[in-house]
Amino acid sequence: MCRFLAYLGDPVYLDELVCEPRHSLVRQSLRAEEAKTVTNGDGFGLGWYGDRPQPGIYREVMPAWSDENLLALCANVRSPLFFAHVRAATGGGITRLNCHPFQHGPWMFMHNGQIGGFSQLRRIMEMRLPDHLYERRRGATDSELLFLLILQAMEAGRSAPDATQQVLQETHAMMRALQIQQPLRFAAALADGQQIWAFRFSSDDRPPTLYRRAHGRGWVVASEPLDGDDSAWTPLAPNEVLHLRPEQLSVSQLA
Amino acid sequence: MCRFLAYLGDPVYLDELVCEPRHSLVRQSLRAEEAKTVTNGDGFGLGWYGDRPQPGIYREVMPAWSDENLLALCANVRSPLFFAHVRAATGGGITRLNCHPFQHGPWMFMHNGQIGGFSQLRRIMEMRLPDHLYERRRGATDSELLFLLILQAMEAGRSAPDATQQVLQETHAMMRALQIQQPLRFAAALADGQQIWAFRFSSDDRPPTLYRRAHGRGWVVASEPLDGDDSAWTPLAPNEVLHLRPEQLSVSQLA
Amino acid sequence: MCRFLAYLGDPVYLDELVCEPRHSLVRQSLRAEEAKTVTNGDGFGLGWYGDRPQPGIYREVMPAWSDENLLALCANVRSPLFFAHVRAATGGGITRLNCHPFQHGPWMFMHNGQIGGFSQLRRIMEMRLPDHLYERRRGATDSELLFLLILQAMEAGRSAPDATQQVLQETHAMMRALQIQQPLRFAAALADGQQIWAFRFSSDDRPPTLYRRAHGRGWVVASEPLDGDDSAWTPLAPNEVLHLRPEQLSVSQLA
Amino acid sequence: MCRFLAYLGDPVYLDELVCEPRHSLVRQSLRAEEAKTVTNGDGFGLGWYGDRPQPGIYREVMPAWSDENLLALCANVRSPLFFAHVRAATGGGITRLNCHPFQHGPWMFMHNGQIGGFSQLRRIMEMRLPDHLYERRRGATDSELLFLLILQAMEAGRSAPDATQQVLQETHAMMRALQIQQPLRFAAALADGQQIWAFRFSSDDRPPTLYRRAHGRGWVVASEPLDGDDSAWTPLAPNEVLHLRPEQLSVSQLA
Repeated sequence: MCRFLAYLGDPVYLDELVCEPRHSLVRQSLRAEEAKTVTNGDGFGLGWYGDRPQPGIYREVMPAWSDENLLALCANVRSPLFFAHVRAATGGGITRLNCHPFQHGPWMFMHNGQIGGFSQLRRIMEMRLPDHLYERRRGATDSELLFLLILQAMEAGRSAPDATQQVLQETHAMMRALQIQQPLRFAAALADGQQIWAFRFSSDDRPPTLYRRAHGRGWVVASEPLDGDDSAWTPLAPNEVLHLRPEQLSVSQLA
Repeated sequence: MCRFLAYLGDPVYLDELVCEPRHSLVRQSLRAEEAKTVTNGDGFGLGWYGDRPQPGIYREVMPAWSDENLLALCANVRSPLFFAHVRAATGGGITRLNCHPFQHGPWMFMHNGQIGGFSQLRRIMEMRLPDHLYERRRGATDSELLFLLILQAMEAGRSAPDATQQVLQETHAMMRALQIQQPLRFAAALADGQQIWAFRFSSDDRPPTLYRRAHGRGWVVASEPLDGDDSAWTPLAPNEVLHLRPEQLSVSQLA
Repeated sequence: MCRFLAYLGDPVYLDELVCEPRHSLVRQSLRAEEAKTVTNGDGFGLGWYGDRPQPGIYREVMPAWSDENLLALCANVRSPLFFAHVRAATGGGITRLNCHPFQHGPWMFMHNGQIGGFSQLRRIMEMRLPDHLYERRRGATDSELLFLLILQAMEAGRSAPDATQQVLQETHAMMRALQIQQPLRFAAALADGQQIWAFRFSSDDRPPTLYRRAHGRGWVVASEPLDGDDSAWTPLAPNEVLHLRPEQLSVSQLA
Repeated sequence: MCRFLAYLGDPVYLDELVCEPRHSLVRQSLRAEEAKTVTNGDGFGLGWYGDRPQPGIYREVMPAWSDENLLALCANVRSPLFFAHVRAATGGGITRLNCHPFQHGPWMFMHNGQIGGFSQLRRIMEMRLPDHLYERRRGATDSELLFLLILQAMEAGRSAPDATQQVLQETHAMMRALQIQQPLRFAAALADGQQIWAFRFSSDDRPPTLYRRAHGRGWVVASEPLDGDDSAWTPLAPNEVLHLRPEQLSVSQLA
């Protein structure tokens, strides 16, 4: 099980959320308090927006807690919108290319969950991609593929939440057609540099957890409360979509 | 341009061929004497057979000359059949997953060359793979894909050289169908643990070089002469296939 | 807390002990059953003897469980005498240079434990080294320094166990002189290619654990039982020195 | 031979100087135009100041040209004062710990050159360090050691250029005392977050080159001209010290 966090608000140093909290991702990467998988040591990733439209992406397969480059980056980069992700691999190999967040133009995406029976579905899902997105496929994970399919649906004119919903529905339909019993689980965040959408979904009744909390003049969304103060964190309900813009938070439902 | 070497014969320590010669791959990885690309620093790989049917594979994106693990491995592993490869990337990203040799069961494969216009061909070539080989696709290179297609042709009953020839012909036919002007270049080696086939082919008149030379009770095949004694090395002619078995060397032609 | 294992006996593939057992080091590196530190993800090392006098050494800071090079090496190298070590750093930085085993000529060494108050002692201990061993100092750990001091005592004519005992006594004497309260803890193994000495010592009453068990025509020494069958493992007593030679096991006491 | 660049001026994105110029360090790391060593592939480092007093440091032993983290960092970090360095190792091992720049508090330092006969001098030079700086020693290079000695001289009250000059004089005196024939060569840059000092010195008549050029409202100092326009670059003379502050450039001489 992966863990992630997303922040939108006044610019803060990344370490304020990524490293310092008592249950920060860097510490979680060493010892998770309440998760099934003890260690998240299969890769770490950061994505942050500065003044340019494309985010900076840093991904590494060394453990986060011993990566001095990562710690220095977090201590010296300040951003109004960033993602951090620790990976517990479910498939696809341990390589930077399979680490989150994934990026394309101004978009970035990260995911916790999995497509049940992905090895049966991978080929037919990849076939759906148009040439220019097929070419962008670098790794072998279900997460990168979901991102490319969402990009495709957005290129066809859908909004970010509608595109995501469509990809989830189509993926789930393919899973049913192939009589795959395992669930489709999807806690994810998508950003375009100005706003974040966070999703909590599962085809069964166990969607991966997501919580949100105000942080200064902004919000954090995270797989688990990052500090000891659990009561300050609001869980997302199953099928909930959280939409964050500067000074504006709204919640809707997947149809 | 990549470089490689393959050895078959009495067991020798890997460093005898991989590290020590005046123009060894480890030194070539630092400064090539006669190649177009100055540096081969995009990854190194070794594959060697011991007593087990599957070869050991070591791949790393650190430069070969500074990788103490690689040097120690070469100094302490002895094998009757091994491959070594330095990569100069033409595409697909710098990751261990894209380094040669590639391995599947008892087979291993390495390649120098490229499929012209690969980005146009990649999808239709990948579509030809059966599910179980599609699933084995980890990286994004043309080389790994050629290997999987050769495996498919062998699974259909063809011999190693026939399977390779078929894949080259089909690939070239697809390139012509798409009016791709760039050539298909292919210097490669394939092994099953008992024997090696080496190929030198190009759809134009500039196939990547390959040379062979006796080494003790065995033979080496290499992209370039490994020592200063060029006259001792026999070049493979274009379209030539070299077949090495214990104490037996034969040469044939691609049809 | 680090973990290690050492094997001497008929040649076996490394994976038989390093990877496959239910509580193997590769699995322990992911989730330790009974240790204080949950994860041993600060580096992994192997050392093995083949036909040459110097051992091969492989050290990596990627987690062991995701390092395909390590797994392939263990599956394809067979040795009559090898060490494996997972590191939980107590100091000195996460780098291959600080990973065990350490090697010098035919000797190799690995360690679990620490010198209490090492930062106060480091300089005066390093000063004791003769020039040629001072030059060999690459990292910053107490473990590498203990090894170099043991080498020095052996060069002065002492046997391996006497040299080790002398270094422990002198180190402990320096600690007392500086009124350091923390203990000197030392579970370690030393080999010369033909034989292994394993040590279990502490200046307090909590020496790091060491166990031994017969394995085919040989023996394993390990920080923890590697399989579920704890009753088959004999713990080393505090201050015990185990000496392994082909078909010969003996136990003595530190004076 | 290493290469480096230092920038002070209005904030610019790092890639503007580190990656884009025709002879940028990232390109030089692949193929140097005029240097003795063909490839600088033994490690890359960046150091940049943001709003905090301590600089961010990024160091990696992968080749710069294939490190996507480095390229993303350069594309997304903007700074008024930064260093970049490619290493061609002369000793000390290939590890992040031996890569430049070195950092201590608000200070950072990078170096091209070497102390002749360093293996004879290392111990007596390290002995001169006070405990708290001895403890900071992580790697094994002469460069890191020179930096620690300069810090020591500054802690004793000397200015940055005086401290540097004192360390060079003392080092050269020790070399003469040991009758070392090889030269002491030293092209280096030192920064405190507000200002840069660059030095060009050698005990023989071949100090490593350094050039400077105005860049927007600022200056670059580099081992080689970074673009094709060599006439725009002013070489530092031997024994010259360049001092850069916001909108202020001055030149002095080592005594």
